[in-house]
Amino acid sequence: MVDSVQGKKHKGLVIINTGEGKGKSTAAFGMMLRAWGRGMRVAAVQFIKGDTSKFGEHMAFEKMGVEVIPAGRGFTWTSHNLDVDAEKARHGWKVASEMILSRNYDVLVLDEITYPLRYGWIEVSDVIDVLGRREPMMHVVLTGRNAPQELVEFADLVTEMRPIKHPYAEQGITAQKGVEY
Amino acid sequence: MVDSVQGKKHKGLVIINTGEGKGKSTAAFGMMLRAWGRGMRVAAVQFIKGDTSKFGEHMAFEKMGVEVIPAGRGFTWTSHNLDVDAEKARHGWKVASEMILSRNYDVLVLDEITYPLRYGWIEVSDVIDVLGRREPMMHVVLTGRNAPQELVEFADLVTEMRPIKHPYAEQGITAQKGVEY
Repeated sequence: MVDSVQGKKHKGLVIINTGEGKGKSTAAFGMMLRAWGRGMRVAAVQFIKGDTSKFGEHMAFEKMGVEVIPAGRGFTWTSHNLDVDAEKARHGWKVASEMILSRNYDVLVLDEITYPLRYGWIEVSDVIDVLGRREPMMHVVLTGRNAPQELVEFADLVTEMRPIKHPYAEQGITAQKGVEY
Repeated sequence: MVDSVQGKKHKGLVIINTGEGKGKSTAAFGMMLRAWGRGMRVAAVQFIKGDTSKFGEHMAFEKMGVEVIPAGRGFTWTSHNLDVDAEKARHGWKVASEMILSRNYDVLVLDEITYPLRYGWIEVSDVIDVLGRREPMMHVVLTGRNAPQELVEFADLVTEMRPIKHPYAEQGITAQKGVEY
């Protein structure tokens, strides 16, 4: 879409928040907050956090009426599923790719998807294929350490969160409820 | 506060999100979202954005009942105020420091405060002094490029957001409503 005033393009972005530092998922949730503020249709699929964990973001999104889906939700274990974590991740990707292609969302966060990508449970080429077929104005935000290079090349906006100072190792302080989870 | 199970300390953190990349303010808003989800008392003072601007985060925080205060709000212009931007920033810091010392907030974001600090409109030593006198469990998040070194040394958790790939210069794409503002 071309803005007639500025001649600049509006388009849905593929955004990656990666790196060893804090703030990758948190910034993705901040984007969801913004989009929700504008009445856009937002959701997240979480690839690492447990099916039953209740973090501050879950409590918030529940209050806001925003869907946050654990990758393992709805996954059915059978004796063929030898590697449950891998199967849950693949199930999560199936759900996420259907959401991406449904045209029912303006912003979708794939939280910590880089881990199953790194483990080879989900194919990077599949993700790029589905992202390439999404509705052109849809934004997709992918988070996690060690984003695969092909995905970085495909993305529009990539930020590395670098730890400059981290309190836990140095000061024996634990993660703080409210700001970190 | 010491966690009896893990023997690890709980304490309020001074958190800095700095660097040239995206996600500094956005991650701070994500922390506010989390804390709000847990029923904590959260607010932000914004040092750069205009008094009347309406971004996605403002719309969201308004729906959520969370206070986001522009530094210039309530500032009264007189003929003695030769440098209005500097005076607005000082006024914002006065408001913020009262909020920090009030014990009425669990999480306070000082959004883009590094700019008035860099310009010398607010003294870094004043900010460190007030932060040092806050209630021990209170978290304060400071954002903006070029965080002053003394502040980095004082902080508990410092993250640098580094741009790996940025769409605007390269592709002529403008900032996208919903995810970026």
